[in-house]
Amino acid sequence: MKTSQNLLALFNTAVLFTLILYFVSCQAKTQTQDDGPAKRLRDMGVELPEMSAPVANYVKYVKTGNLLFLSGHGACEEGKPGKVGSDLTIEEGYEAARLTGLCMLSTLHHAVDGDWSRVKQIVKVLGMVNSSPDFYEQPKVVNGCSDLMVEVFGEKGKHARAAVGMASLPGNIPIEIEMIVELTE
Amino acid sequence: MKTSQNLLALFNTAVLFTLILYFVSCQAKTQTQDDGPAKRLRDMGVELPEMSAPVANYVKYVKTGNLLFLSGHGACEEGKPGKVGSDLTIEEGYEAARLTGLCMLSTLHHAVDGDWSRVKQIVKVLGMVNSSPDFYEQPKVVNGCSDLMVEVFGEKGKHARAAVGMASLPGNIPIEIEMIVELTE
Amino acid sequence: MKTSQNLLALFNTAVLFTLILYFVSCQAKTQTQDDGPAKRLRDMGVELPEMSAPVANYVKYVKTGNLLFLSGHGACEEGKPGKVGSDLTIEEGYEAARLTGLCMLSTLHHAVDGDWSRVKQIVKVLGMVNSSPDFYEQPKVVNGCSDLMVEVFGEKGKHARAAVGMASLPGNIPIEIEMIVELTE
Repeated sequence: MKTSQNLLALFNTAVLFTLILYFVSCQAKTQTQDDGPAKRLRDMGVELPEMSAPVANYVKYVKTGNLLFLSGHGACEEGKPGKVGSDLTIEEGYEAARLTGLCMLSTLHHAVDGDWSRVKQIVKVLGMVNSSPDFYEQPKVVNGCSDLMVEVFGEKGKHARAAVGMASLPGNIPIEIEMIVELTE
Repeated sequence: MKTSQNLLALFNTAVLFTLILYFVSCQAKTQTQDDGPAKRLRDMGVELPEMSAPVANYVKYVKTGNLLFLSGHGACEEGKPGKVGSDLTIEEGYEAARLTGLCMLSTLHHAVDGDWSRVKQIVKVLGMVNSSPDFYEQPKVVNGCSDLMVEVFGEKGKHARAAVGMASLPGNIPIEIEMIVELTE
Repeated sequence: MKTSQNLLALFNTAVLFTLILYFVSCQAKTQTQDDGPAKRLRDMGVELPEMSAPVANYVKYVKTGNLLFLSGHGACEEGKPGKVGSDLTIEEGYEAARLTGLCMLSTLHHAVDGDWSRVKQIVKVLGMVNSSPDFYEQPKVVNGCSDLMVEVFGEKGKHARAAVGMASLPGNIPIEIEMIVELTE
């Protein structure tokens, strides 16, 4: 009788510890620091711009669960304004998209408190190109941002995307991009 | 021997109760009622419009997890149609955006069964302004909606946002807005 | 004393098994196969097109949590290009939206490894219609996609939606659509 009691109590203890270990392992955060994106930005000779201030009554990003929603961004620094197709060439549009991507990386860097390892996946990019009505090469323009994300984050940078042509954009900027990012926690 | 068995059994019991309490606390919903938004709407002298019916084969909102995706909305009541920049002034566009925001609040109110405390955060606003090709002040127009959200929800109303110019919109309405909201459960 | 020890140990065991059962039931996946969508597609005499390749540096979809974000799609097969309102009629636009929907179903089918039962809900559709500046019937066009989703998925196919008019689209396609889908796991 004592033996069976002992066994039962020991069994209970064992299962309990298993459950506790399960909990702990589930909630432990991966502590490995990923220096990849920081290093790659350095290798590319790129310095992130200062995070720009919102131009109206909104914030640059909102985190919900482990999804980060970034506001529509233009480039942080002023560039050539106008519509791609009439005022800007595809190449100039590509460059504007890349600068816009850098501006979004600056915001993202702020959102993860400077810890790039918290970026799990670039989920979705909506590239909205200020387009003349007969300009049909939006994908080549938005690649300026997409290429940057893949350069910086590798596989984690490959995202779903839409590239479309807008009638006009704030301040006549050539491109505005919004982005959804999955974070690790 | 008996003592150690007793201790083991008591220890097991204690850990079990801790686990159970953890579960219960994790799943308990906050029951506090937040009358803030209802009161603020009253103070603003605003009455929400009736929730409008979809104009086609879709629904006004879909809830997934604790995210609520609202369909693109125009104002619930008919207003001046046309493109901002040519047919409407910035101020008229702002007013249309505010009325659109009220229409979205009406839908949101329905989605949370009238319990404003279930609104945790306005996450994302996409403000699509029917724009003449040379109109560049979309942010000032979309503020009509953003200002309303912040007035009604305070900090919870501050959202990520994109404001862009469309070639045209259904029924030639001046603005269409879609929104993502985080709910408490 | 022995009796109370026995009772305590038995009680612990009982609660443990309850907890374990709870865990197991929470994590068990519903294994029921839903042949509905496959059957309905057969009944409609529809064969899904091959999943198209991305035209630029992005992927067709990204899964985060149980949300699937689909990239902006055009129709998989080439169709009449141009703006709805001037180059295409509403009916031609509707048909293009339906073909775009089929192309998205092809991508979705790939994303769920051919198991339609993993589609829990079509959450959100953003229908972007290549529009002449005076075309105001975007909802009637985007219905081509929305009707298809409801035909194929029934209640699960009813989604939140925005339908808007773009200045231009890649390759001058008449419509580009992006979609968010909730999966079962």
